Amino acid sequence: MLLLVLSAFVAILYNDQFQPFQAAVGFSLLGYTFTTYMIPRVSTAFIKRGLFGRDMSKIGKPICPETIGVIPAICYMFLMILFIPFMYVRYYYHGDGSSLSEPASLFPNGKLSSFLSGMLCLQSMILLGLMDDLFDIRWRHKFFLPAIAAIPLLVIYYVDFGVTSVLIPSFLKRCLNVTSNSFDLGVFYYFYMAAVAIFCPNSVNILAGINGLEVGQTVVIAVLLILNDLCYMLMGDLGSPAYSVHLYSSCMLIPFLGISLGLLKFNWFPARVFVGDTWCYFSGMVFAVVGISGHFAKTLLLFFVPQILNFIYSSPQLFHLVPCPRHRLPHFDAKDGLMHNSWTEYDRDHPIKKVMVPIFSAFEKIRLIKLVRNSNGTIIKSSNMTLINLVIIWFGPKREDHLCALIMALQFLTGLFMLILRHTVAPMLFGFDNSWNMLERRWN
Amino acid sequence: MLLLVLSAFVAILYNDQFQPFQAAVGFSLLGYTFTTYMIPRVSTAFIKRGLFGRDMSKIGKPICPETIGVIPAICYMFLMILFIPFMYVRYYYHGDGSSLSEPASLFPNGKLSSFLSGMLCLQSMILLGLMDDLFDIRWRHKFFLPAIAAIPLLVIYYVDFGVTSVLIPSFLKRCLNVTSNSFDLGVFYYFYMAAVAIFCPNSVNILAGINGLEVGQTVVIAVLLILNDLCYMLMGDLGSPAYSVHLYSSCMLIPFLGISLGLLKFNWFPARVFVGDTWCYFSGMVFAVVGISGHFAKTLLLFFVPQILNFIYSSPQLFHLVPCPRHRLPHFDAKDGLMHNSWTEYDRDHPIKKVMVPIFSAFEKIRLIKLVRNSNGTIIKSSNMTLINLVIIWFGPKREDHLCALIMALQFLTGLFMLILRHTVAPMLFGFDNSWNMLERRWN
Repeated sequence: MLLLVLSAFVAILYNDQFQPFQAAVGFSLLGYTFTTYMIPRVSTAFIKRGLFGRDMSKIGKPICPETIGVIPAICYMFLMILFIPFMYVRYYYHGDGSSLSEPASLFPNGKLSSFLSGMLCLQSMILLGLMDDLFDIRWRHKFFLPAIAAIPLLVIYYVDFGVTSVLIPSFLKRCLNVTSNSFDLGVFYYFYMAAVAIFCPNSVNILAGINGLEVGQTVVIAVLLILNDLCYMLMGDLGSPAYSVHLYSSCMLIPFLGISLGLLKFNWFPARVFVGDTWCYFSGMVFAVVGISGHFAKTLLLFFVPQILNFIYSSPQLFHLVPCPRHRLPHFDAKDGLMHNSWTEYDRDHPIKKVMVPIFSAFEKIRLIKLVRNSNGTIIKSSNMTLINLVIIWFGPKREDHLCALIMALQFLTGLFMLILRHTVAPMLFGFDNSWNMLERRWN
Repeated sequence: MLLLVLSAFVAILYNDQFQPFQAAVGFSLLGYTFTTYMIPRVSTAFIKRGLFGRDMSKIGKPICPETIGVIPAICYMFLMILFIPFMYVRYYYHGDGSSLSEPASLFPNGKLSSFLSGMLCLQSMILLGLMDDLFDIRWRHKFFLPAIAAIPLLVIYYVDFGVTSVLIPSFLKRCLNVTSNSFDLGVFYYFYMAAVAIFCPNSVNILAGINGLEVGQTVVIAVLLILNDLCYMLMGDLGSPAYSVHLYSSCMLIPFLGISLGLLKFNWFPARVFVGDTWCYFSGMVFAVVGISGHFAKTLLLFFVPQILNFIYSSPQLFHLVPCPRHRLPHFDAKDGLMHNSWTEYDRDHPIKKVMVPIFSAFEKIRLIKLVRNSNGTIIKSSNMTLINLVIIWFGPKREDHLCALIMALQFLTGLFMLILRHTVAPMLFGFDNSWNMLERRWN
């Protein structure tokens, strides 16, 4: 651990060219160390305060401290604040009021308020997530918590920047016969940003239920986004707008990766801590902030494909077309120690809707659902419609950690495929890489 | 209530000249309404989560929800964020990249990041205060929580502004025979800022123990600071640096006054809620942020005289020169329903230090302490050394609300006296009003 801290300080301080990237790696190591140091030390205090849950997928259903995700989240906030002097140029005021600037590899100071708005947004999300974990806010209210937390982001975007136009892909331009390159969304641009801010945290929150998955999925997304950043940084010229914006994005994500891995260590099977809604909201919001302030929210969504599919697949139950039991997590069988898919059962009080019968039968044929029929052929049970259960249907019952690793691997492969698609097909459609022109205005 | 909200919106939106002052009054009304709306609605949830305490100064020691201060604090954060478009100039980006500015009565946009750093600092304070209320952080650790929360303020001051010199009063200049008007404190300036940030929250925190006093004292300080701002704004020219900085300060404090009054309504005798450390830390930090970012931290301390006196008077017990019982709040006598001073008792295990005997006797003569002696003349009891107990010694036992009102009145009168002193004696000593020259550099 001492070695980690030491190398962190070396990376941050022994930094001749003031490379924010290198400093980010240093802060990431610090974050990992601090998170792994703190979590075991605070667990008892959380349990004492009543913040704990039972791990349903273990023999004896042991108690685990809940809401531990708030520790790495707060740690991230302070790391990023300490990171500021390594990201932004320091102004030295002289007696005559003139200022002296430092290495040009840093970000323009004019962008500091945009960075701070992101920080405020994340901190609001931690605070509201904590309120949710403490006081169990109702589902239909908590869905909008991220939108409230995003207010700082939107307000400061409005005051400080305010570009609300989006690019029109060249193929669409030909179809619609327009000459302008961009289209001004006006106030809808703010709805769009708010939608991204609502989507990311909530989509992380609903892909959950087995040890390690809440954190694991955010680790995968962070890795994919950093890969995406590296693509741009290796392709783009030093100092170009795309380079700058993706350097910024990686500076946000590399320390995030550090604290996530620290948390994952304790949340991995067999979990010693649970992360709580705070973590799901916070981590989703980190991605939303990076995507929005880096102006690549559409690319961001490419890496949320498993979460999007999970949401679509879940929607019949979420919108009560099919009865939805309180918990849909997979079922732990103490006999073989494996995770099996869980079921929704139908009876007189909770009948299956007639319209769903042919749909379910069709789904069954393409192995999208598992059904159990009685002797009359009536459906009495169907597997719960979550991505986790679907993976179990496809690959068979698995031990909890293998299941989590499998889902993470699938997520990573999907993301990698999207990443390749993004850098090969998209430039063809848009005629040029769509971040560039936009950023020119934003970063210069 | 509807009327309040309505007039709030009128004040904010029907604002031809875009006067931030008028908008601040509007946001203040909104804050009051929201706080008084929310508090009764969340009280049960707080008690359920184990966040409650017993009111020791009532018959039957009823249960009260604790940590309720977090509600107005969060409310304040969001109000201030929504306030941004009314404080800072909105840039309109045109097709050609040029920007159009709005009324000159607003603040320069370059100061937005300084404002945001204050917000981040306050939010960190709420988060850490909440951690303290939830997990009972040890006294010697929690003393430094405000310093941690102040990191955003210091870091961004370092990056964004970084002036670390202070003015030298003209009489000192003559004594020391120096010609320079200012003296560069360098890194010590940051220690000074951190010290202010540690002092304000903690000093609010130790003047506590009777219904309404935690909030009441912050209301009084806020009112005094707003009066101070008005002095400058009525004296200074529109657009002068001093005008601008005190307009800024009042924009921070007027909405704060709104939420404080909303909280006071429920914390006033007989208290229906307790405010928790979160509130003490948060409110103290609001003053620290205003003082630091407005560059009038020394003037700020003039309004903390009762808190400073309380600290000095308490120090023999705080530093264990005299035994310190766990609670030093005044003692409630159920027979007459009044608050009496509480006692520290001395016996063989907890003897009084010999050195203190003559000091205490001297204190007794000037009515700074109440002593009880046994037949041998040995001191067996002394009144606890807090400002609250002292006021009871001076003015006799009082009902809890009368006692609180009395302390608030004393605090207000002291503050008013300091305010007059500040605007009459200080200019003579410094030769000119010391905020002006400094601000010239800061705001232009």
